[in-house]
Amino acid sequence: MNRRMVFYMLGKIIFIEALLLTLPFAVSLIYKESCAWAFLITIGIALAVGLILTVLSKPSTRLIYAKEGFVLVALAWILMSLIGALPFTISREIPNYINAVFETVSGFTTTGASILTDIESLSHGILFWRSFTHWVGGMGVLVFVMALVPSLCDRSIHILRAEVPGPVVGKLVPKIKQTAKILYLIYIALTLVQVILLWCGEMNLFESLIHSFGTAGTGGFSSKADSIAGYSAYSQWVITIFMLIFGLNFNIYFFILIKRVKSVLKNEEMWVYFAFVAVSISIVTANTVPLYETFAEALRHSAFQVASIISTTGYATADYTVWPQVVKTLLIILMIIGSCAGSTAGGLKVSRVILLFKQIKRELLHMLHPRSVSTVKMDGKKVDIATLHSVCVYFAVYMVVLFLVFLLLSLETSFSFESNLSATIACFNNIGPGLDAVGPVGSYAAYSPFSKILLSFAMLFGRLEIYPLLFALTPSTWTKKIR
Amino acid sequence: MNRRMVFYMLGKIIFIEALLLTLPFAVSLIYKESCAWAFLITIGIALAVGLILTVLSKPSTRLIYAKEGFVLVALAWILMSLIGALPFTISREIPNYINAVFETVSGFTTTGASILTDIESLSHGILFWRSFTHWVGGMGVLVFVMALVPSLCDRSIHILRAEVPGPVVGKLVPKIKQTAKILYLIYIALTLVQVILLWCGEMNLFESLIHSFGTAGTGGFSSKADSIAGYSAYSQWVITIFMLIFGLNFNIYFFILIKRVKSVLKNEEMWVYFAFVAVSISIVTANTVPLYETFAEALRHSAFQVASIISTTGYATADYTVWPQVVKTLLIILMIIGSCAGSTAGGLKVSRVILLFKQIKRELLHMLHPRSVSTVKMDGKKVDIATLHSVCVYFAVYMVVLFLVFLLLSLETSFSFESNLSATIACFNNIGPGLDAVGPVGSYAAYSPFSKILLSFAMLFGRLEIYPLLFALTPSTWTKKIR
Repeated sequence: MNRRMVFYMLGKIIFIEALLLTLPFAVSLIYKESCAWAFLITIGIALAVGLILTVLSKPSTRLIYAKEGFVLVALAWILMSLIGALPFTISREIPNYINAVFETVSGFTTTGASILTDIESLSHGILFWRSFTHWVGGMGVLVFVMALVPSLCDRSIHILRAEVPGPVVGKLVPKIKQTAKILYLIYIALTLVQVILLWCGEMNLFESLIHSFGTAGTGGFSSKADSIAGYSAYSQWVITIFMLIFGLNFNIYFFILIKRVKSVLKNEEMWVYFAFVAVSISIVTANTVPLYETFAEALRHSAFQVASIISTTGYATADYTVWPQVVKTLLIILMIIGSCAGSTAGGLKVSRVILLFKQIKRELLHMLHPRSVSTVKMDGKKVDIATLHSVCVYFAVYMVVLFLVFLLLSLETSFSFESNLSATIACFNNIGPGLDAVGPVGSYAAYSPFSKILLSFAMLFGRLEIYPLLFALTPSTWTKKIR
Repeated sequence: MNRRMVFYMLGKIIFIEALLLTLPFAVSLIYKESCAWAFLITIGIALAVGLILTVLSKPSTRLIYAKEGFVLVALAWILMSLIGALPFTISREIPNYINAVFETVSGFTTTGASILTDIESLSHGILFWRSFTHWVGGMGVLVFVMALVPSLCDRSIHILRAEVPGPVVGKLVPKIKQTAKILYLIYIALTLVQVILLWCGEMNLFESLIHSFGTAGTGGFSSKADSIAGYSAYSQWVITIFMLIFGLNFNIYFFILIKRVKSVLKNEEMWVYFAFVAVSISIVTANTVPLYETFAEALRHSAFQVASIISTTGYATADYTVWPQVVKTLLIILMIIGSCAGSTAGGLKVSRVILLFKQIKRELLHMLHPRSVSTVKMDGKKVDIATLHSVCVYFAVYMVVLFLVFLLLSLETSFSFESNLSATIACFNNIGPGLDAVGPVGSYAAYSPFSKILLSFAMLFGRLEIYPLLFALTPSTWTKKIR
């Protein structure tokens, strides 16, 4: 492995984090808050770490392979979280460093699971940083680096593949740097539109920013203890629609920009995603109508919760843990499905679910007619067998990780079966709130430090789609010389 | 589809069921019980149904294909359960017919889930039939028919494939009829050994038979309300060991018989199965030692519960719902894994789990070295890509069915998340008891008729490994002419 190159790039990424930290620093100066010091110290530490890494690891060759891509992405996310947690602890707003790391991982991975019990007591600077991690993590830290830094390394497609979620990662345009730039420009534009729309409502600019970051990254951190429940129906609908928008594959927006409407219309994943949303909202509304005064209210809360869960955001306008059992089960299933590949959302991804179902159909046909040859198509194009097989194996490894995390989390004695399982699913799929004790009005505060570290890994496994972290944690990746 | 042949064979199978019903009829005569009438009436009905089916559906050709095999197996299991439920209702011992069908499906599929709340009030004849369905269902009804009836149809391998669980079904000897006979002879011999061993303890002959049927089929119906808890440590250990024995692939016993010890020793599935058992017993014992007076007691209960769950039997000597959370999660995972292919047990099967893990390893290697070609081996032999892919797709369809059943079962308003999910897993994997309300001391009695029918289908889906029932329930199987 080209270790020097990995550490060199890691250094560059930490420089970028130092740059990102200047924003919350500025916010804390505007509000004249003492946490400004915490950001300043962290920026200093980040610069020092970045300097040490880049100076000590000057690489002889800039060439990287798949392995380096995976390991770099995994290490980058871990190191960024470890440094990103410092302002919380230094400012004493989250005194316990493990709690701060949990909150930061939850931020970067756009999970939105929180150990905080009194959110509204936090300073503006800290709240801003907490939500800003969502926005940075949503589109990907390394995609951001690739968009900014000119030709960082050769074959950077390996980094894009390792960081962008979904079964197949392609480039929008021939150049990676251009692809990364286009993705970020779309991301910034959509976020700005949401900020303006929210600002037009009753939210002030700060709140509009916080909730747009949380929506764009499909994260779910709010500046309010009751999440979005206290805001107007207008704001709730705006957030509902934007959660769904950020759950779509960003390629769709690119195609709209270059006016390839046909490519948009024949995107199967989009239609299935919309179908899941429509059917789920209908089922949930039908089950919650008796709980609300008007149908419109039931529809609004149902649409909000469904959009929040399927987009893996995790905002809430209602405590769905008191909704009927069938709704809770449906939400758990939506948590696992998640949104579209190439979006900022988590979960298995709709395209994988589609490919699994198509393969089941193909298997059934094959069982009846063993000599028949049938192909699987997606968006009108044939999907090759290697991709199909990868999707199946990903589903297997996904379930293995899920069950292992659930088993280890069950070492917690004071949490129910429902809490532990839903906490596992909610963290692994980057939603945030689960059921029972970790529901929208609960928190992860009472979990042991071991469980918090475990769930942090679950969040990273979910955001990076397992493999990068698996390679980074496998000793043979580091020792073996074979390539 | 060769419908006439399907219905003709269905008739033959119902004749066999009439024959099987003479055994509980005899038992009820021995004990001079009034339920003898119920058996006599049912035998009459079965003969009439069998006669109608065979006379009306005289086939023009005996040739069947995969489709006929699947549909026949599915219909046979449903019809046998519908008729097998009659003695319970006619004798008024389970007055509600839906409850009786649930109990019979649970019997034939070797699940052992019960709607009874006062088992000890049942007559001997009814108790015998209830447990005997386990024994018949364990090795398979159609395998039994094939062993008895000379050359029932051409290409009967399709029936064997549809009924015997596991990823690959092969013949032990070139002739199907001989294979079926050998399987049943091994089955009878092992059952007899267990009957004798239990009879040597404190059980009388009747109890020894009941509990040997329940163990051999990996079913779990007992004649006692507290399952095996009231019996001696000797009986508990005998049942523990036999539950594990019946969870092994029967090919192993065949190889032992023909002295091919090498084939036995290089059976990977067996070793992994033993490893799962050993590790699980260690973990459970470590977690339950504080709950018992002696280590030996903790070990006995832990070994019993682990063997009961992994073999998907469902007997209990302790209420594991009050054991630590981590043990419950481990048991849920064992429920899903199940035992070996080609055994009488349910679950995913250990061989499938092995093949999934080997494919994950292969995928990881492939991601690092995209041009490398690596093969997956099992028992020293290369596994072809079609089988590997089938295993993955089976896992996907397995999870889809599990989640759908869970979603529909969640329409129950009076059961907890934990009860509904564990009921789904326990029925679908043919274990019987789950957690919370459906734990070893609970029952399925309080579920609605809809849920009981749903769970009956889940049990059939599990026992027949999904596809046969899926084909039978697909309208196009019946209408389309293509083959």
